[in-house]
Amino acid sequence: MIDASDQSLIDGVLAGQRRALAKTITLIESTRDDHQLRAGEVLRALLPRTGRSIRVGISGVPGVGKSTFIEALGLALIARGHKVAVLAIDPSSTVTGGSILGDKTRMEHLSQSLDAFIRPSPSAGSLGGVAARTREAMLVCEAAGFDVVIVETVGVGQSETAVAGMTDVFVLLQLPNAGDDLQAIKKGIVELADVVVFNKADLDETAAERAMQQMKGALHLLRAASPDWTVPVLKVSAVKHAGLDEFWSAILRYRDAMQASGAWEARRSRQALDWMWALVDQGLRHRFEHHPAVRAALPDIRAAVAAGTLPASAAALRLLQAMD
Amino acid sequence: MIDASDQSLIDGVLAGQRRALAKTITLIESTRDDHQLRAGEVLRALLPRTGRSIRVGISGVPGVGKSTFIEALGLALIARGHKVAVLAIDPSSTVTGGSILGDKTRMEHLSQSLDAFIRPSPSAGSLGGVAARTREAMLVCEAAGFDVVIVETVGVGQSETAVAGMTDVFVLLQLPNAGDDLQAIKKGIVELADVVVFNKADLDETAAERAMQQMKGALHLLRAASPDWTVPVLKVSAVKHAGLDEFWSAILRYRDAMQASGAWEARRSRQALDWMWALVDQGLRHRFEHHPAVRAALPDIRAAVAAGTLPASAAALRLLQAMD
Repeated sequence: MIDASDQSLIDGVLAGQRRALAKTITLIESTRDDHQLRAGEVLRALLPRTGRSIRVGISGVPGVGKSTFIEALGLALIARGHKVAVLAIDPSSTVTGGSILGDKTRMEHLSQSLDAFIRPSPSAGSLGGVAARTREAMLVCEAAGFDVVIVETVGVGQSETAVAGMTDVFVLLQLPNAGDDLQAIKKGIVELADVVVFNKADLDETAAERAMQQMKGALHLLRAASPDWTVPVLKVSAVKHAGLDEFWSAILRYRDAMQASGAWEARRSRQALDWMWALVDQGLRHRFEHHPAVRAALPDIRAAVAAGTLPASAAALRLLQAMD
Repeated sequence: MIDASDQSLIDGVLAGQRRALAKTITLIESTRDDHQLRAGEVLRALLPRTGRSIRVGISGVPGVGKSTFIEALGLALIARGHKVAVLAIDPSSTVTGGSILGDKTRMEHLSQSLDAFIRPSPSAGSLGGVAARTREAMLVCEAAGFDVVIVETVGVGQSETAVAGMTDVFVLLQLPNAGDDLQAIKKGIVELADVVVFNKADLDETAAERAMQQMKGALHLLRAASPDWTVPVLKVSAVKHAGLDEFWSAILRYRDAMQASGAWEARRSRQALDWMWALVDQGLRHRFEHHPAVRAALPDIRAAVAAGTLPASAAALRLLQAMD
């Protein structure tokens, strides 16, 4: 099943070659059916060498300083001997083809390091498709020897759920002003956060302290108490490289606690199965929507349901029968 | 397509006969394929006469006094000339076959009224299936002339989302103690509520006032501001029949505001389309899971994905191909 050029991709990735890594991710991102089949084979060959990184999801609204934070963190981790991959899921890129997170020059220093690999968000397809390809890119990075994979996203729509659903630890980056954490609470992001970080905390210490107390209160309300983990609320100044050690210590404490309780592996198994079923449902829906008889029947049926002249159940039955 | 006995069901429902109404709902709740087909036809015949009720969802944990509240409200509405149907979605009944909400004797006085119709939760099937049948039962009640349909549920799992997804207005019933509203916040129910009611408010006026202030704060945090509607937080004592007029006035104000903005019809159209797609996805998944080749392949594939030896994407592809 695997031809010579794909085998060289596999060998290149396993040898940690950046070019092979980038080409493999490009193959994964292709929407061509033959590319998808090849990508599947390559991924399967790489799978035994995946899973050995810490997968860190980072979310925060534009302006929170994600790039600066990730660059400072990445450089600090590389200085400790880590290899750091940075991937992105950017809902804006799926709509416009443009991307808030796509610009490599955002992390100028990190992108020059040989121990870093930065890949912008895929810019086509639904959020679900983008998320699927980012998950697979994450696995390829792991096979290439990256032992920290950071998946970043902006605080828009369902992208946090997607990122939290593919990472081991989900970090919420906040600004120390009162309006911001309320925003986060509204969007239900706080319920996903395993670690909360206030960036730019040095700009206004008083505001930062107040915001941290508010966040602790919100976490107390919104998170079910866990015997294994209390979500820490940390202060960082990425520009001044302050607080990054404490942040990484929190990540390692989280990993140790979750691995000790078995929750780490359980989360990964659940994520993989959820992902499989999501892809199955997506595949089933895709086949359904592209079925000629369904396509022919859908506009009238949809209009009748919206107008209240056809029951939803009868409509669903008719559409499903159209497929037979 | 419609035989004589089904036609007499239809005629009976349209004439407002309770026996025909009950038999039609029993037909809808049947899982037999031929019954489902007949139910679909009957429903389609009734559809032009549906949609003219106010659909009120009511949620609250066991002990909050839902039965007493609904009975008092129902009797008050009947005294004003309304016809009131009460349906239930009870997640406990889908698991155990038993039901927290199933007992008709809970509403002894209301159940004796000729202008009331009380139907316990269907006791078999998934939450999705129960919700689908309750939606359809709601339509049948409307066709039978009930102009207020109350769908009640307990604060467990996803049942509130199901009820909010089929009603015009979603009411959260709370107890005036500090622990309870925090519970509600955790479960994300507050985000669904269009009206919040503190029942048994007379037992401890001070506690009730404090709880209402907390709830207003939580609503301020959790609900996006709307120009059309600010969620009211009301006080009721169902036992003493106090506050029920104010409650119903709030429901009518909500209806008027939503109808004026067009949000009322838009919500119903969206609910019907969401429901159609949910039934389509459910039907597709059902066909998939019952396909012999899929059933044969699934256990090994699922185990390999959970163990991390097979990529989710390859697993999904293999399962989808098994169906061809």
